[in-house]
Order: sequence, then structure tokens, then C-alpha cells
Amino acid sequence: MEFLAAAIAIGLSAFGAGIGNGMIVSKTVESIARQPEQKGTLQTTMFIGVGIVEVVPIIGVVLAFLIFFGA
Amino acid sequence: MEFLAAAIAIGLSAFGAGIGNGMIVSKTVESIARQPEQKGTLQTTMFIGVGIVEVVPIIGVVLAFLIFFGA
Amino acid sequence: MEFLAAAIAIGLSAFGAGIGNGMIVSKTVESIARQPEQKGTLQTTMFIGVGIVEVVPIIGVVLAFLIFFGA
Amino acid sequence: MEFLAAAIAIGLSAFGAGIGNGMIVSKTVESIARQPEQKGTLQTTMFIGVGIVEVVPIIGVVLAFLIFFGA
Amino acid sequence: MEFLAAAIAIGLSAFGAGIGNGMIVSKTVESIARQPEQKGTLQTTMFIGVGIVEVVPIIGVVLAFLIFFGA
Amino acid sequence: MEFLAAAIAIGLSAFGAGIGNGMIVSKTVESIARQPEQKGTLQTTMFIGVGIVEVVPIIGVVLAFLIFFGA
Amino acid sequence: MEFLAAAIAIGLSAFGAGIGNGMIVSKTVESIARQPEQKGTLQTTMFIGVGIVEVVPIIGVVLAFLIFFGA
Amino acid sequence: MEFLAAAIAIGLSAFGAGIGNGMIVSKTVESIARQPEQKGTLQTTMFIGVGIVEVVPIIGVVLAFLIFFGA
Amino acid sequence: MEFLAAAIAIGLSAFGAGIGNGMIVSKTVESIARQPEQKGTLQTTMFIGVGIVEVVPIIGVVLAFLIFFGA
Amino acid sequence: MEFLAAAIAIGLSAFGAGIGNGMIVSKTVESIARQPEQKGTLQTTMFIGVGIVEVVPIIGVVLAFLIFFGA
Amino acid sequence: MEFLAAAIAIGLSAFGAGIGNGMIVSKTVESIARQPEQKGTLQTTMFIGVGIVEVVPIIGVVLAFLIFFGA
Amino acid sequence: MEFLAAAIAIGLSAFGAGIGNGMIVSKTVESIARQPEQKGTLQTTMFIGVGIVEVVPIIGVVLAFLIFFGA
Amino acid sequence: MEFLAAAIAIGLSAFGAGIGNGMIVSKTVESIARQPEQKGTLQTTMFIGVGIVEVVPIIGVVLAFLIFFGA
Amino acid sequence: MEFLAAAIAIGLSAFGAGIGNGMIVSKTVESIARQPEQKGTLQTTMFIGVGIVEVVPIIGVVLAFLIFFGA
Repeated sequence: MEFLAAAIAIGLSAFGAGIGNGMIVSKTVESIARQPEQKGTLQTTMFIGVGIVEVVPIIGVVLAFLIFFGA
Repeated sequence: MEFLAAAIAIGLSAFGAGIGNGMIVSKTVESIARQPEQKGTLQTTMFIGVGIVEVVPIIGVVLAFLIFFGA
Repeated sequence: MEFLAAAIAIGLSAFGAGIGNGMIVSKTVESIARQPEQKGTLQTTMFIGVGIVEVVPIIGVVLAFLIFFGA
Repeated sequence: MEFLAAAIAIGLSAFGAGIGNGMIVSKTVESIARQPEQKGTLQTTMFIGVGIVEVVPIIGVVLAFLIFFGA
Repeated sequence: MEFLAAAIAIGLSAFGAGIGNGMIVSKTVESIARQPEQKGTLQTTMFIGVGIVEVVPIIGVVLAFLIFFGA
Repeated sequence: MEFLAAAIAIGLSAFGAGIGNGMIVSKTVESIARQPEQKGTLQTTMFIGVGIVEVVPIIGVVLAFLIFFGA
Repeated sequence: MEFLAAAIAIGLSAFGAGIGNGMIVSKTVESIARQPEQKGTLQTTMFIGVGIVEVVPIIGVVLAFLIFFGA
Repeated sequence: MEFLAAAIAIGLSAFGAGIGNGMIVSKTVESIARQPEQKGTLQTTMFIGVGIVEVVPIIGVVLAFLIFFGA
Repeated sequence: MEFLAAAIAIGLSAFGAGIGNGMIVSKTVESIARQPEQKGTLQTTMFIGVGIVEVVPIIGVVLAFLIFFGA
Repeated sequence: MEFLAAAIAIGLSAFGAGIGNGMIVSKTVESIARQPEQKGTLQTTMFIGVGIVEVVPIIGVVLAFLIFFGA
Repeated sequence: MEFLAAAIAIGLSAFGAGIGNGMIVSKTVESIARQPEQKGTLQTTMFIGVGIVEVVPIIGVVLAFLIFFGA
Repeated sequence: MEFLAAAIAIGLSAFGAGIGNGMIVSKTVESIARQPEQKGTLQTTMFIGVGIVEVVPIIGVVLAFLIFFGA
Repeated sequence: MEFLAAAIAIGLSAFGAGIGNGMIVSKTVESIARQPEQKGTLQTTMFIGVGIVEVVPIIGVVLAFLIFFGA
Repeated sequence: MEFLAAAIAIGLSAFGAGIGNGMIVSKTVESIARQPEQKGTLQTTMFIGVGIVEVVPIIGVVLAFLIFFGA
């Protein structure tokens, strides 16, 4: 049951992070193509955004390893 | 069962936070590209928004660790 | 079973709060970019809205901790 | 089983209230940005709306606590 | 099993009422912003609509309490 | 099992009635804002519509109470 | 098991009838607002339509009561 | 198990017939509002369509009663 | 188990036929309203289409009765 | 279990064929209304398409009867 | 269990092939109506496409018969 | 259990390949109708794309046969 | 259970790779039709993209074979 | 159970990475076709984005192998 728990934790984290980051980066790419002179600002905002999105999944990864090695 | 509970708590938190933050940050990036002179206001609103969205998932992370170490 | 109940309570709360707040804040960011002179009114309405949305999830968080520590 | 029932009651309530209020508040923010001079009327309608939406979830919260403490 | 039944009854009622009322109130807010001079008529229609939508969920709430206290 | 059956009956009824009535009333509000002089006809059609939509859910409510008290 | 069967029969019937009638009546309201002089024809067509949609759910209601009282 | 089978048969039939007929009749109402002079042709086509859609659900109703009374 | 199999067979057939025919007939009604002079061709194509769509569901109905009476 | 397998085979086949053929025929009807002079070509393409779509469901029907009679 | 496996294999294959081919053929019909002079090229591309889509489902059909007769 | 595993492997492969190839080929057909002079380039890109999409499903087919014959 | 695990691993990998590659290649085909002179750049970007998308599914294929042969 | 856990971990990772990367790369291809002179900036942003998206799935792959070989 420990292995299944670790798999679910990392699987849902990867799924949530994939959708969230996908939305952010694809919109950033589209916006840079429309306003190239704002490249710096848009990329900075993107980095902040993906950093915030990754917070919970990364902790989910840590938890999954804790469950795996602690089992 | 404790490990599975921690995995579900952190997995659903990561999923909800990913979608919520993804919507906010992608709209912010799009809006900055359209109105670069409003950059400061938009980023401030974004920070408030992602802060509010992260409240419940972060507590979910705390709960997941409590379940894990308390088990 | 107590741990699973707490995980489901906080997981669904985080999911609902993430979607609800994501809709509100992303629309606010979009509206500020379109009407910067209405910034104050829009942010006030946003704070009221996210406050209302957070009511039930925060109580869900409280209930989850009650289930966890009372178990 | 009591804890699981309380978790499902508050989780579905939080989910329904989050979607319902998210729709209402996001539309209100959008409408205020388009018609700022109607701010008062729109916010009044919004308060009535979120009040109506919160009726059943709040009772769900009450029921969840009744199940929790009565168990 | 009684607690679970009460939780499902009130949870689905809250979910249905949240979506139904969210659709009605958000459209009303949008319509008032477009036609402010029809404010009275639109709000009256909204009150009738949310009243009709709340009929079955309120009975669901009553049933849930009957199941809870009758158990 | 009787309580669960009553909860499912009233829960699905509330969900179906909420979506159906939400569609009808929200369209009516939108149409009245566009054609205020047709207010009477539109509301009459709305009342007929929500009456027809409520037929089966109301019987579902009756059945749920029959299951509850007959159990 | 009989009660659960009756609940499922009436619940799915209410759900199907709610969606079907909601689509028909909401389109009718929208069409009357666009073409008020066709009010009679549109309402007649609507009555025929909701009558046809209600055929199977009403029989589902009958079957549910047969299951309930025959049990 | 017989009662559950009858309930599933009539429930899925009602759901399919509701969606199918809802699509047909709502499009017919919309088309009559746009082309009132084609009222006869459109209603004839609608009657043929809903007749064809109802074929399988009506047989599903018959089968459900066969399962119910033959049980 | 035989009754359940017959119910699933006829239920999924009714669902698939309802969606398929609903798409075809609703598009045909819309097309006749736009091009009344092509009424014959469009109805002929519609009859061919619904005939093709009904092939598998009708065999599903036959199979369901075979399962019912052969049981 | 054999009856259930036959029901699932024919049910999923009917569902897939209904959606696939519904898409093809509804687009054909729409295209004929827009370009009546291409009627022959479009119907020929439609017949090829629905023939290709029906290949696997028809074999699913055959398999279902094989499972039914071979059981 | 063998029969159920064969039914699932052929059912999912029919579902996937139905959606894939439905998308291809409906787009082809629409494109021929818009550019009749490209009829040959479009139909050739369509035949290649449906051939590629059918590869895996046809093998799924073969596997289903292998499971059925080998059982 | 081996048969069920082979069926799931080939069923999901067929479903994924059907959707992926359906998207690619339908877009190619649409693009050729809009830019017939680019026919060669578009078809070459399409062949590369469907080849890449088919890689994993074909291995899934191989694995399904390995599970079937190795069982 | 080993066979089922290998089937799930390769099935979900094929599903994810099919959707991801389908999105990339279909957009590439559409973009080449709109900007034929950028053919080289677009295809290079497409190859990089499908290579990145295929990374995890290919490892999933490897893992599935490891589970199959190591079982 | 270990094999199933590894399969779920790598399957959900592949699914999330496929959708996330698919969104990013398809938008990049579309943007390069619209603004070819921004090719370098867009591809750089794309590489950063897919790198961020792949972080959690790659760790999921590592975890899956750890579960597989450590079992």
C-alpha cells in the first residue's frame, strides 16, 4: 500500500503541475509573439508563476520519496 | 491507509492549486502583454490572488505531513 | 479511516477553492488591464468575492484538523 | 464511517459553493469594469446571489459538524 | 450508513443549487450591466428563478436532517 | 440501505432540476434584458417551462419521503 | 435493493428530463424574444417537444412507484 | 437484482431520449423562429426525428417492464 | 446477472442512438430552414443516416431480448 | 458473465458507431445544404465514411452473438 | 473472464475507431464542399488517414477473436 | 487476468491512436483544401506525425500479443 | 497482477503520447499551410516537441517490458 | 502491488507531461508561424517551459524505477 500511495502522490502532482505550467508557458509564448518588446517582463512573470505552481507538486514529490524510503 | 490518505491530500491540493494558479498567472501574462504600463498593478493583483489560492493547498500539505509523521 | 476522511475533506476544499478563486482573480486581472481607472473598485469586489468563496473551504480545513486531532 | 460522511458533506458543499460563487463574482467584476456607474446595483445583486448560493453549503457545514460531534 | 446518506443528500443538493443559482445570478448581473433601466424586472425574475431552483435542494436539506436525527 | 436510496433519489433530482431550471431562467433573464416589452410573454413561457422541469424532481422528492418514512 | 433501484430509476429520469426540457424551453424563450410575432407557433412546438421528452421519464416514475409498492 | 436492472434500463433510456429529443426540438424551435414560412416542413422533419430517436428507448421501457413483471 | 446484461445492452444502445440521431436530425432541421428548396435531398440523406446509425442499436435491442428470453 | 460481456461489447460498439456516424452524416447534410451541386460527391464520400466507421462495430456485433450463442 | 476481456478489447477499439474516423471523414466532407476541385486529393488523404486509424483497432479485433476462440 | 490485461493494453492504445491520428489527419485534410499547392509538404508532415503517434500504440499491440501468447 | 500493471503502464503512455503529439503535429500542419516559407523552422520545432513529449511514454514502454519479462 | 504502483506512477506522469508539453509546443509552433523573426526568443521560452513541465514527471519516472527495482 505504501508504493501505491507514493505513486498516487507523484502522479497527481505531475498531472496538476503539467496542466498548470502548460497553461502559463503557452500563454507566455503567445504573448511574446504578440508583444516582443515586453519579453523581459513576460518571462519574469512566467518564472514567478511556474515557481508558485511548482510549490505544492515539489512537496508532493518530497512526500512520495518519504513514503517510499520510510516504508 | 495513512500513507494513502497523505497521498490523496497532497495530490488533490497540488491539482487544485495547479489549475487555480494556472488560470490566474496565464491571464496576468496575457494582460501585461496587452497593457504593459499596468504591469505593477497586475502583478500585485496576481500575487494577492495566488496567495489566496495557495492558502488551502498549503494547509493540505501541512496536514499530509502531519498524517505522515503522526502515523 | 479518520486519516482518509481528513484527506478527502481538505482535498475537495482545496480543489473547490482553487477553481472558484482562479475564476474570480483571473477575471479581475483581465478587467483591471481593460479599465485601469477602476482598479480600486475591482480589487474591493475581488476581496469580497474570494472571502465569500473561502468561507466553506476554511471550515473544511478546520473540520479536517478536528478529525485528525480528535481521532 | 461518521468522519467520512462529514468529509464528503463539507467537501461537496465547498466544491458547489466555490463554482457557484466563482461564476457570480467573476461576472460581477467583469460587469463593473464595463459599466462602472452601475457599481452599487451590481454589488447589491452579487451579495443577494452569493447569499442565496451559500444557503445550502452553510447548512451542509452545520450538518457536517453535527455528524462530527454527534458521532 | 445513515450519516453517509445524509452527507450525500446535502452534498448533491448543494452542488446542484450552486450551479443552478450561479448560472441565474451571473446572467442577471450581466444583463443589469447591459440594461440598467430594467433592473427591477430582472431582479424580480431572478428572485423567482432562484426560489424555484432552491425548492428541491431545501427539501433535500430537510430530508438530510430527518435522516440524521431519525437515525 | 433505505436512507442511501432516499438520499440518491433526492440528490439526483436536485441536481437535474438545478441545471434545467438554471438554463431556463438564465436565458429568460437575458431575453428580458434584450426585449423588455416582451416581459409578460417570456415570464409566462418561463413559468410553464420550470413547471414542466419540476414535475419529475418533485415526484422524486415524494418518492424519497415515501422511502424514508416507509422504511 | 428495491429502494435503491427505485431511487436510481427516478433520479436518472429526473436528470434526463431536466436537461432535455431545459434545452427546449431555454431556446424557446430566446426565440420568442427574437420573433415575438411567432409566439403561438413556438409555444405549440415547445409543448409538443416537452411532451415527447417527458414520455420516458414519466414511465420511469411509474416504474419506480411499481418497484416501491411492489417490493 | 431484477429491480436494479429495470431501473438502469429505463434510466439510461430516459437519459438518451432526453438529450436526443432536446437537441432536435430546440433546433426546430430556433429554425421556425428564423424561417416561419417553413413551419410545416420543419415540424414534419422534427416528428420523424423524435420518432426515430424514441424507437430504442421505448423498447427499453418495454424491456424494463418485462424484467419487472417477469421477475 | 442476465437481467442486468440486457439492461446495459439496451441502455447503452439507446444512449448512443439518441446522441447520433439527435446530431443528424437537428442539423437537418437547421439546414432545411436555411435551404428550403433542398428539402428532398436533405431528408433523403437524413433517412440514410439515421438508418445507418440505428443498425447497431437495433441489433443491441435484439440481443437484449435474446438475453432476456433465453435466460 | 457471458451475457454481461456480450452486452458490453454491443453497447460500446453502438455508442462508438452512433457518435462516429452522427458526426459524418450531420456534416454531410450541412455541406449539401451549402453546396447542393456537389450532392453526389458528398454522399459518395459519406457512404465510404460510414462504411469504414461501421467495420469494427459490426464485428463487435458478430462477436457479441458468438459470445451469446457459444456460451 | 475471457469473454469480458474480448468484449472490452473490441468495445474500446470500436469506440476509438469511431471517433477517429468520424473526425477525419466529417472534415473531408466539409472540405470537399468548400473546394470541390480538390476532390481527388482530399479523398486520397482521407483513405490514407482512415487506413492508419484502423490499424490498431483491426488488430484489437484480431486479438479479441484470438481471446474468444483460444479460451 | 492475462486476457483482461491484453484487452486493456490494446484498447487504450487503439483509443489514444484514434484520437491522435484523427486530429492530425483531419487538420491535414482541412489544410490541403485551403492550400492545395502545399499538398506534398502537408502530406509529408502528416506521415511523419502519424508515424510518431503510432510508435507507442504499436508497441502496446506487441505487448498485448506477448501477454496473450506468453500466458 | 504483473500483466495488468504492464498493460496500464503502456496504455496510459500511449494515450498521453497520442493526445500530446496530436496537438503538436496538427498545429504544425495548420501553420505550414498558412506560412509555407517557414516550413523548415516549423518542422524542426515539431521534431523537438514530439521528441520531448515521447520521453516519458518511451520510458513507460521500457518499464512495461521490464515488468512483463521480469515477472 | 509494487508493479501496479510503478505503472500508475509512470502512466499519470506520461499523461500529465503529454498534455502540458503538447499545449506549450503547439502554441510555440503557431506563434513562430505568425512571427518568424521572433523564432529564437520563442524557442528559448519553449525550452524553459518544457524543462519546467518535465521536472515532476521525470522524478515520477525515477520513483517508478525505484519501486520496480526495490520491490
